[in-house]
Amino acid sequence: MPGILGLLRFRPTTAKPLMELAEVLLRGESPLSRGERELIAAQVSQLNGCQFCYNTHGTHAALQLERGWDTVDAIATDLDGAPVSDRLRALLRIAAAVTAGGKQVTPELVETARAVGASDVEIHDAVLIAASFCMYNRYVDGLGTWAPPDRTDYLESGRSIVADGYLA
Amino acid sequence: MPGILGLLRFRPTTAKPLMELAEVLLRGESPLSRGERELIAAQVSQLNGCQFCYNTHGTHAALQLERGWDTVDAIATDLDGAPVSDRLRALLRIAAAVTAGGKQVTPELVETARAVGASDVEIHDAVLIAASFCMYNRYVDGLGTWAPPDRTDYLESGRSIVADGYLA
Repeated sequence: MPGILGLLRFRPTTAKPLMELAEVLLRGESPLSRGERELIAAQVSQLNGCQFCYNTHGTHAALQLERGWDTVDAIATDLDGAPVSDRLRALLRIAAAVTAGGKQVTPELVETARAVGASDVEIHDAVLIAASFCMYNRYVDGLGTWAPPDRTDYLESGRSIVADGYLA
Repeated sequence: MPGILGLLRFRPTTAKPLMELAEVLLRGESPLSRGERELIAAQVSQLNGCQFCYNTHGTHAALQLERGWDTVDAIATDLDGAPVSDRLRALLRIAAAVTAGGKQVTPELVETARAVGASDVEIHDAVLIAASFCMYNRYVDGLGTWAPPDRTDYLESGRSIVADGYLA
């Protein structure tokens, strides 16, 4: 089974809290929309070079954002010019810093996010989503899992996650 | 409140799966002892420069390993000569690779661990513990929390975690 799926089946005791965390972080109550949260997950996975997680969460983001994959692709190639709000752009900059290391999140990055309207809960959630994908990405790549090569390979399971969530 | 504690109180919805994951990974059923698993958590936290997590999990490891802090200190300064089994040493090398990035876990590192007796479940658990501390460390440092400066500051809460776990 591709990506994290074989690992979850191999070790059900750890699979349960891992999927509960994904459900709460990416789909639970938050001032960030589900599409925005999946976009942060996709961005971090791209920065970490985790192909399975990038295509998975890029698909989930694309299915829930108005411009679909165009937005996800823009984040990866040109964050400054990407078609997102200034608030989300500032949160994506914080998420990129988290990916490099917790101490890379400077007071300036946080102040900039606040100045364009990000709340403390939004900053918290962006940091924790980014941190959690530094875990999921390492889990998937550290155990040498296999990833389907094409975006289209992720569409069917992506539609099912977007409809029913990570615990279904 | 120091370290992760203030964050857990700030956002109870994410605190629950985060602590359930810690409980399963560090104290649930595993062929690795609780002391060995806390040692991996301490090592990764030290590599990531997260003082709060290093002192917290170093204390938990010290309380559950025969030579206490001597072993934890040896891991940080001289992994080759540290007083641990060859099996645990090989797993700690894998954990250090995970900290650098999932793709840093080479087939050679995994084969070396297997050759000195590590099972697939032990390798899995070492990788996931290391990956999860790449999350916890970034969460604690990314949100600029405060860490008590001395090891002795961590002893009382460490004894309580070792006795009652992360969900108490």
